[in-house]
Amino acid sequence: MRQSELFVKTLREAPSDEEANNAKLLIRGGFIHKEMAGVYSYLPLGLKVLRNIENIVREEINSIGGNELLLSSLQPKENWDKTGRWNSVDVLFKLPSQTGKNYALGPTHEEIIAPLAKKYISSYRDLPAYYYQIQTKFRDELRAKSGLLRGREFIMKDLYSFHRNEKDLEIYYEKVMVAYGNIFKRLGLEARVVEASGGSFSKYSHEYQILNPVGEDLIFYCDSCDFAQNKEIFTGKIGDACERCKKGTILSSNGAEVGNIFKLGTKFTEPFGIKYKDEDGKEQMVVMGCYGIGISRLMGILAEIYNDENGLKWPEGAAPFKIHLIELKKGLGDDLYKRLQSNGNEVLYDDRDAKAGEKFADADLIGIPYRLVVSEKTRDKIELKKRGEIETKLITIDELKKILN
Amino acid sequence: MRQSELFVKTLREAPSDEEANNAKLLIRGGFIHKEMAGVYSYLPLGLKVLRNIENIVREEINSIGGNELLLSSLQPKENWDKTGRWNSVDVLFKLPSQTGKNYALGPTHEEIIAPLAKKYISSYRDLPAYYYQIQTKFRDELRAKSGLLRGREFIMKDLYSFHRNEKDLEIYYEKVMVAYGNIFKRLGLEARVVEASGGSFSKYSHEYQILNPVGEDLIFYCDSCDFAQNKEIFTGKIGDACERCKKGTILSSNGAEVGNIFKLGTKFTEPFGIKYKDEDGKEQMVVMGCYGIGISRLMGILAEIYNDENGLKWPEGAAPFKIHLIELKKGLGDDLYKRLQSNGNEVLYDDRDAKAGEKFADADLIGIPYRLVVSEKTRDKIELKKRGEIETKLITIDELKKILN
Repeated sequence: MRQSELFVKTLREAPSDEEANNAKLLIRGGFIHKEMAGVYSYLPLGLKVLRNIENIVREEINSIGGNELLLSSLQPKENWDKTGRWNSVDVLFKLPSQTGKNYALGPTHEEIIAPLAKKYISSYRDLPAYYYQIQTKFRDELRAKSGLLRGREFIMKDLYSFHRNEKDLEIYYEKVMVAYGNIFKRLGLEARVVEASGGSFSKYSHEYQILNPVGEDLIFYCDSCDFAQNKEIFTGKIGDACERCKKGTILSSNGAEVGNIFKLGTKFTEPFGIKYKDEDGKEQMVVMGCYGIGISRLMGILAEIYNDENGLKWPEGAAPFKIHLIELKKGLGDDLYKRLQSNGNEVLYDDRDAKAGEKFADADLIGIPYRLVVSEKTRDKIELKKRGEIETKLITIDELKKILN
Repeated sequence: MRQSELFVKTLREAPSDEEANNAKLLIRGGFIHKEMAGVYSYLPLGLKVLRNIENIVREEINSIGGNELLLSSLQPKENWDKTGRWNSVDVLFKLPSQTGKNYALGPTHEEIIAPLAKKYISSYRDLPAYYYQIQTKFRDELRAKSGLLRGREFIMKDLYSFHRNEKDLEIYYEKVMVAYGNIFKRLGLEARVVEASGGSFSKYSHEYQILNPVGEDLIFYCDSCDFAQNKEIFTGKIGDACERCKKGTILSSNGAEVGNIFKLGTKFTEPFGIKYKDEDGKEQMVVMGCYGIGISRLMGILAEIYNDENGLKWPEGAAPFKIHLIELKKGLGDDLYKRLQSNGNEVLYDDRDAKAGEKFADADLIGIPYRLVVSEKTRDKIELKKRGEIETKLITIDELKKILN
């Protein structure tokens, strides 16, 4: 894409009404626009990052049999009354309407997917079933100060699984853990699997936490093995010997929750009466699991982790473009731009009529992994600099091809 | 995709609480699920149709320079106060929050895009600019009885353009008309361009109407030339001679509005003070246009038009799959399924353990353009039937390849 046609400029100053570093960086780089506290719009560059994250999540969830759909944001109050959550979920937005009815504005979709699944599940032959969606959610947060890490409006992937019994749920739960591991790895993130309360059905649920000072959660973990618990269930203290591996020591850290997985059991199938007939024609209660990933929150945590004093430094999996091509004289980059594109590369082409210093500063702010410069000085060669490295290299087009493959 | 893994079944009966034919057909075929009046979820097959429509729209809007972004659904009340629409838009959902503030739940996005554009437009060099999004919208409708044709929650493409002057807006407006023409043609729809009120800035705006009894609008049009006006501005009567071509006669029809384009002028740039400096350094008011297309409504109107007594008949551009492959003996279709997929075809493969009659009835309900059957009877050939045709043909794999290309 030609930068002259991006319609969005980087900003020299961080906005004064924004406290969170991730939002400051993303606003300055032209990725997001703040509408009000906890509510952001995604500008063209930001939408590209979102789509990249979404596609990684989609690929991995498809690979474990997930079937994508799109559930409604407006939800009938009756469904929430049935599960008792109309009054118990304190962040639920309640929307009055001209019809006199109130709707829930979906912060999550158990109340929609469970009755939907009921319509299509009647026999053991219909199980297991895995539905997921990638969708905007809403939470009526009292405070929203962490940029994309806690929004009143945000994008989630939510997956729901339906099973014949607990054992079948266990098997799928393990598969989701593998898929989640792949997702965070592909995004360049080290997510810690943290034990959390499992409700009445299961001892633990699991949170995927990025250990980072900006996170709003508090995590206790072993410095030697993979033991980790959130503060709600951890009963020891910092400095204790790890009870699991008997070798390590318990440390603590803030954590940003980017995913969670939960064995719901019959918590939602019970109130909606979701049953199936087994091989003997006997009615059995369906068992359910749910699995979330915060898509826009992942964008926030990536911005929070991958940056330096000059701007963002996107990992390749999430970067809005792979290559930032900068020409220092009008038209000099056109040929290379076309060649790179025809080889299937995603290129942001800075064809603007601007000074070299401004272009370089913008490239640092935006944070695309490979910066290429063509100028009268580089002649038939290309100057390559990776974002975050200081060194530049003068290379030929053939050398560039090898590096990009 | 294997039909055994679709998790969704067709329904033998139309739902009793649904009046609209498009919704009845789409519910029976397993495309959508009704949550409440005017609110539907999109099941895997329905989401595929939506994505196909979206991609056609995206390609055509990108081709006229549109730059995709994603604006927030929650909108500050202050923005709506500024334009005076907080009280004047009767279908605006007003959402109370724990913070004490009320938010607008976006039925449209002029109140968001205008202040956003203001941040990035300061000079004539920043113009023109074209932003669009494909997004879920909300309208607090008193009545919603037309299925996907009038929803409380629905998906729209909304494009906003910003210009130096009226002349530049005119030029882009014409380009949008060409793009819209392409979009409806690719979807197999004949949309009539209908003159409507242009507000204070322009004599006319234009609606894209599908003439169909199910439409909620009333259109007057010439049976000979392209003259057409909606009932708000038409001053003649049925049977009049056409004043434009002097040859035809004025007829009337119901119409379903699938798009509209509007020269807003300074209606929104004025209240938000969106100005630019021209070449002489003089401040000028930015001129604006807006252009909508109802994505989910298009899905509804396609269902309304393309069907017969046995179910849906998708045109190729929107069809969830191009090919519906049916095997009548377990495993017999596996090889062909793989070959079709590896040639880049979108295939729904009915590998279920079900009777031939059930499979054929489901194929008709779902309405995929090409039905292929392999059975012991077809041997090394394939039975081809196009949806909507009665005749079946026995063909070789080489003949099939030619037909599909």
